[in-house]
Amino acid sequence: MADRKSEKKHEGNLPKEDDLPKLVRNIVASYHRDQITHRIGETFLPSRGKIVEIMDELRQLLFPGYFGHKVLGQHNIQFHVGNLADHLVRALSEQIFHCLCYSSDSEHHACRNQARQIALEFLARVPQLRKALKLDVEAACDGDPAAKSFAEIIYCYPGYYAITVYRIAHELLELGVPMMPRIMTEHAHSLTGTDIHPGASIGKRFFIDHATGVVIGETTIIGNNVKIYQGVTLGAHSFTKDERGRIIKGLKRHPTLEDNVTIYANATILGGETVIGNDSTVGGNVFLNMSVEPYTYVSLDDPTLNVKLRRKKTGRKKKQ
Amino acid sequence: MADRKSEKKHEGNLPKEDDLPKLVRNIVASYHRDQITHRIGETFLPSRGKIVEIMDELRQLLFPGYFGHKVLGQHNIQFHVGNLADHLVRALSEQIFHCLCYSSDSEHHACRNQARQIALEFLARVPQLRKALKLDVEAACDGDPAAKSFAEIIYCYPGYYAITVYRIAHELLELGVPMMPRIMTEHAHSLTGTDIHPGASIGKRFFIDHATGVVIGETTIIGNNVKIYQGVTLGAHSFTKDERGRIIKGLKRHPTLEDNVTIYANATILGGETVIGNDSTVGGNVFLNMSVEPYTYVSLDDPTLNVKLRRKKTGRKKKQ
Amino acid sequence: MADRKSEKKHEGNLPKEDDLPKLVRNIVASYHRDQITHRIGETFLPSRGKIVEIMDELRQLLFPGYFGHKVLGQHNIQFHVGNLADHLVRALSEQIFHCLCYSSDSEHHACRNQARQIALEFLARVPQLRKALKLDVEAACDGDPAAKSFAEIIYCYPGYYAITVYRIAHELLELGVPMMPRIMTEHAHSLTGTDIHPGASIGKRFFIDHATGVVIGETTIIGNNVKIYQGVTLGAHSFTKDERGRIIKGLKRHPTLEDNVTIYANATILGGETVIGNDSTVGGNVFLNMSVEPYTYVSLDDPTLNVKLRRKKTGRKKKQ
Repeated sequence: MADRKSEKKHEGNLPKEDDLPKLVRNIVASYHRDQITHRIGETFLPSRGKIVEIMDELRQLLFPGYFGHKVLGQHNIQFHVGNLADHLVRALSEQIFHCLCYSSDSEHHACRNQARQIALEFLARVPQLRKALKLDVEAACDGDPAAKSFAEIIYCYPGYYAITVYRIAHELLELGVPMMPRIMTEHAHSLTGTDIHPGASIGKRFFIDHATGVVIGETTIIGNNVKIYQGVTLGAHSFTKDERGRIIKGLKRHPTLEDNVTIYANATILGGETVIGNDSTVGGNVFLNMSVEPYTYVSLDDPTLNVKLRRKKTGRKKKQ
Repeated sequence: MADRKSEKKHEGNLPKEDDLPKLVRNIVASYHRDQITHRIGETFLPSRGKIVEIMDELRQLLFPGYFGHKVLGQHNIQFHVGNLADHLVRALSEQIFHCLCYSSDSEHHACRNQARQIALEFLARVPQLRKALKLDVEAACDGDPAAKSFAEIIYCYPGYYAITVYRIAHELLELGVPMMPRIMTEHAHSLTGTDIHPGASIGKRFFIDHATGVVIGETTIIGNNVKIYQGVTLGAHSFTKDERGRIIKGLKRHPTLEDNVTIYANATILGGETVIGNDSTVGGNVFLNMSVEPYTYVSLDDPTLNVKLRRKKTGRKKKQ
Repeated sequence: MADRKSEKKHEGNLPKEDDLPKLVRNIVASYHRDQITHRIGETFLPSRGKIVEIMDELRQLLFPGYFGHKVLGQHNIQFHVGNLADHLVRALSEQIFHCLCYSSDSEHHACRNQARQIALEFLARVPQLRKALKLDVEAACDGDPAAKSFAEIIYCYPGYYAITVYRIAHELLELGVPMMPRIMTEHAHSLTGTDIHPGASIGKRFFIDHATGVVIGETTIIGNNVKIYQGVTLGAHSFTKDERGRIIKGLKRHPTLEDNVTIYANATILGGETVIGNDSTVGGNVFLNMSVEPYTYVSLDDPTLNVKLRRKKTGRKKKQ
């Protein structure tokens, strides 16, 4: 502790130029004091930068001509896709390998083979993914009066981007890849404000409008034709703790939305046993921690009664 | 369908290295099965990357010395702006050209001329834009006790950035440019969490504090001296459908805020016929789908009655 | 004003190619009409790009092996850190110098010395910062059932990133650096949707889950073991104005949360005199502008009564 005397604020006693070696020794010493916050001596860690590159290339594969290389025709599409797929298998394998090694004690050789196979299997699922994503574009177009074209949705809509990344990440999670799915959805979260946990289960024709502030928890189940607006939380209610007061992991903690459900802006729906029955609608700003029957409208109890209107003194001086 | 047998999960039957050509054929085949999710054989699409570069250069033009090239004085300002404007006219024309061609069947030559004229007309409006943006800085400084200087607002405030991009995008929309305005505001949305549709109509001295989670819909009308906080939605209430059950596009679906209105955090205001009268204030977390008179305070009906206080058992073991 | 005749929309009178010099003159003239929106003739302004680079390097110093250079072991850690620290002192000094010169009339030489000393003092505080950040990782792991490992939190969690940047920015603010702290937290705000003002005071073991839409105001005080969910605002209630109607700056405007408080999603808590007593919990969507005693549960008053359930006509035609 002797070296730490300069750590606290002593305005008159700021460190000098030639204190640098001492400052460095103190920082290195702080690494030895705990094992959580560094990875010195560790070999494997997936690269977020590389994983973001992979996602960008996957979008080129999923929506050719929209993203990346743009002058595509029947004469060159096979070459373009072959080249892209070949590169993706290698890049994906490498990152999956790191994710597998990082999380397990398996031998490296086994991880490497497994990674390669998962990458190939993922590519085999691309046509399926494209089908799901096509249905999502159509749902967005049907659900948003402001949508001008399919291209605008694919090209501009943040909710559509978040769903695309979720569908990719969810496949990888199903294929047994640790870490990478979460890195992907957190990247989309950062760009769109929509946080969909890769573990959530989401049906066909899903649409999120405006996207900002949406949270969809790990054990959420969502049916087909569901539409969600900005600020909606599908979250956990409270956490079951074990006898030592530690939160028990792995339980269903998030709601279920059945087919044809719409949730309007800023509604909060909580709890693993909460089921919103099919064809129901939940209004804006509603807080719900119980199930509702199919074909139910849930709204704030007469919003006009819920607020108070008070007349300001008029004649106050206006700024301008 | 024969080739798709490997698509579903068969853990024991993962694809091998030399399956790659088959996987590629399957992916290419999936492009032929629908026309929405690719642009193979199409020529024109605006570039988001280029449009983002244009926005960055426009900020240099709007706020010289703040962004981009920094050592500016009277001796070089004319050269700097001339050079920047010349480049911007070319870059803007090129992207507007793609947006026009992409969206219409006009001849390419006509689109190219029109694009060039629009780019020049946009530059002619820059002094006007700067006036509006100056008033917005002043409104931010007056409205936020945490603001330390004009520079801090221009340089750091996400709400100010979102408004800047909106004002640029709105001009371009008025000049008849498709697609590009939305690409611009969605870029700002991604960086700030504020989603202002370029079609919204917004008056002078507009201020958005904290910015995250704000949604301002396409047909919103906002007067002068309006202040909005984080999480506010000015949204659509419900959608009018035609006899075939399809949403009718183009109606006024979003609220009107008259002059001197303030909307506090996380309030949701919905509906095309909802008018918040001038000099009114809407409190935090209020949900409103009806009009209010000028000079009205709207708040949650006694928030202290709206919540329940329950005493926890004390003496529970604390963690630390 | 003579030159501005082309500014307003005259579809038939769009500017031509050779109008460019005139357009440029008009833009330059608009710079002379106000002093707020340009910095022509000014020398000092911090660089946001450089400050973002500094933050990235600081993360490498705080979490070695996680970010940046990855193959670290006992044999090279001292060299790596020495090199990084040396570069950081220089880069930090340079940017702090610009921030100090920009904001004061001190002589440049004095600013340069002061900047260097602050940079060194900041490095001296790194071990302390690492301790605080380790406690924050542990709090995240204890508080989130979906957390798979410490690494996942450090590597992926946006709330953890926002807290890391806040703790860096807060130290720099305490050391008297203007502008830079806010640039840092606004960068984190942009990436995470969490807006923590660098002036806020936050205790140990702080956790923000999901992060999007959180606002923590400048004069907020937060104790130890506090947990906050997405969409929570700790904000200002209303602003005290002086006799000229201008907002008075510098007062405590934001709430105090004592130890062991949890605030669930989308709750809004306002006011400088609002104190949430220790070991209290505030439920989702609650709006609160008054203090509560220690050991209190605050929830919406029976949410089942607060909403209205209405049965839709069934048998309506479903889309699919």
